[in-house]
Amino acid sequence: MRDPILLTPGPLTTTLATKTAMLNDWGSWDSSFNALTADVCKRLVALVDGSEDFVCVPLQGSGTFAVEAAIGTLLPRDGKLLVLVNGAYGKRMAKLTEVMGRAVSVLDFGETAPLDPAQVAIKLAAEPTITHVGVIYCETSTGILNPLAEVAEVVARAGKRLIIDAMSAFGALPLSAADIRFDAVIASSNKCLEGVPGMGFVLARQAALAQAQGNAHSLSLDLYDQWRYLQQTGQWRYTPPTHVVAAFASALQQYEAEGGRPQRLARYSANCNTLIEGLRELGLEPFLPAPIQAPIIVTVHAPKHANWQFGEFYQRVKERGVVLYPGKLTEVETFRVGCIGAIGKAEIQMAVDAIGRALIEMRIR
Amino acid sequence: MRDPILLTPGPLTTTLATKTAMLNDWGSWDSSFNALTADVCKRLVALVDGSEDFVCVPLQGSGTFAVEAAIGTLLPRDGKLLVLVNGAYGKRMAKLTEVMGRAVSVLDFGETAPLDPAQVAIKLAAEPTITHVGVIYCETSTGILNPLAEVAEVVARAGKRLIIDAMSAFGALPLSAADIRFDAVIASSNKCLEGVPGMGFVLARQAALAQAQGNAHSLSLDLYDQWRYLQQTGQWRYTPPTHVVAAFASALQQYEAEGGRPQRLARYSANCNTLIEGLRELGLEPFLPAPIQAPIIVTVHAPKHANWQFGEFYQRVKERGVVLYPGKLTEVETFRVGCIGAIGKAEIQMAVDAIGRALIEMRIR
Repeated sequence: MRDPILLTPGPLTTTLATKTAMLNDWGSWDSSFNALTADVCKRLVALVDGSEDFVCVPLQGSGTFAVEAAIGTLLPRDGKLLVLVNGAYGKRMAKLTEVMGRAVSVLDFGETAPLDPAQVAIKLAAEPTITHVGVIYCETSTGILNPLAEVAEVVARAGKRLIIDAMSAFGALPLSAADIRFDAVIASSNKCLEGVPGMGFVLARQAALAQAQGNAHSLSLDLYDQWRYLQQTGQWRYTPPTHVVAAFASALQQYEAEGGRPQRLARYSANCNTLIEGLRELGLEPFLPAPIQAPIIVTVHAPKHANWQFGEFYQRVKERGVVLYPGKLTEVETFRVGCIGAIGKAEIQMAVDAIGRALIEMRIR
Repeated sequence: MRDPILLTPGPLTTTLATKTAMLNDWGSWDSSFNALTADVCKRLVALVDGSEDFVCVPLQGSGTFAVEAAIGTLLPRDGKLLVLVNGAYGKRMAKLTEVMGRAVSVLDFGETAPLDPAQVAIKLAAEPTITHVGVIYCETSTGILNPLAEVAEVVARAGKRLIIDAMSAFGALPLSAADIRFDAVIASSNKCLEGVPGMGFVLARQAALAQAQGNAHSLSLDLYDQWRYLQQTGQWRYTPPTHVVAAFASALQQYEAEGGRPQRLARYSANCNTLIEGLRELGLEPFLPAPIQAPIIVTVHAPKHANWQFGEFYQRVKERGVVLYPGKLTEVETFRVGCIGAIGKAEIQMAVDAIGRALIEMRIR
């Protein structure tokens, strides 16, 4: 059987070229592999117009490992992080900061509204001990697009430092050091850049990272050490996921060949529009209003019908070759459909058709 | 060009079957992937005869991440770890414990001698605040085989808990919960089990792990949370390296088909013997005496010759399709040659020949 179409927030469908890039074994100490790492890092810094001011530090593990490493390293032991929360990933950022024993303050906007920059300004004025602000660019709990530029401006005006979890947005939505001020952007290989999972990376302001020696709460997650070692040797500290890095290098080449960020965003936006139109024809409504819907993942109201059961729906759609994602909202019954990965309009229409057939089988339509 | 033969302590040469297992994309929330994880975990527990008493907790990242997670989770905040050091990996274990702010004591045997169980007993008697002991089974800095069974007995007799970093030995050298008492064994996918790098795992005594809630210094590296989530959902907490897990599942199947641990050890032992004999014929001497030489990686004295230069030697051997590893000893000039990976006598002889030719080119022979 063919692999299913993965309509999740990642891991997602990758091209065969990306996967076949994993058919080589690499020595992690060898110059050929160092060149691969250097190439990946250079491309990632260029993606945010980071020029000389920013460095790329790759890290083994999932994206959350990279978020924890960035905060643990860049937030001084006596610093205080304000986390702007409107979903599970904001909550996770606050929690990991708390677990590492740093001071953390939370501004919670619920789970259905975008962040409000005016309220951020008020909070920063009221709590001057805050040194850093953490924000989620696209909150995949719902798929909300947060107003990153406006938040960044408020944070910069207050003289605080910004750490951006851009996990599910990086490479598709706009993010440039020329436009907004930040100390770090965190993302991973397996979202909009369409690599396979197994590594994250932090694009950090070099001046901030250079001052971060000794901050980290963890040796494995010490981004300063990881950076210094990479600078000195060209190598990852500790064994890198060599095959994952090779796949990522290939995925980044394909990304540029496709036309880079504008084309990636255009494809995902078309996917998102095709999806929402198709679902509407089936009588299904997206949860978010269009202006705050990022073209990454769409939260959909479950049909209000006695026969609705997500588990059965998921299985029936999966039998038709499409993998969906459960909802994450606590108060409303929803499911989620991703728009990202090496897929286009054809796959989205297949998914809509599979959903339609499943609803008929379940006697909901 | 063909991939080089990797004679390093990992990442190492894997079979094509292992690599082609990465040509599928998996949904990390999907039951098919959960089954893959469950299969890997079950096989790993069986490898140490863990039966009902032990659980497998896989973790994203390199082996060091898993070592840090095991110690951070199993060592209570008011516990104290004694680390038995005879090389870089012992030093690293002590350092990561120190970074996380726990009490740590070090018993250092230098970098060229195996651990002495009698001295461990004396240390444990003299320092009753020690609660846990950390040991490296095979210290790849030199390739020394440490007397694990004897150390475990001393630790058990003193009523302390043992944490074993078996990274480079696991799956080849003997290690059974039926023979020795331990609370955790840590290893990774990409050593003697011949998977690709990107994940580690901890085989933990369930009774010890169940008491470890709230110990961890890090959310990402909280092994208790990772275990509970896996138990409740069948899923990894945070995005797993899906392709790496699929490769590992394949590698474990191949391992059993080959004949399991006895056959793996036999192949590596034959590799090691072929290597040492071949090097001796070239006038090169292994650093360690045979009784403490693990069949994992061999440290070799560099030729005492004015023309010797490791960088040039490495390049010349690499041009002949073989990747070696630098030495790690501070006082003696050495290099290292691995015996592990999907290689046999033929590849080892090719490596010996490549080394011989390089020495002639360098006018050392």
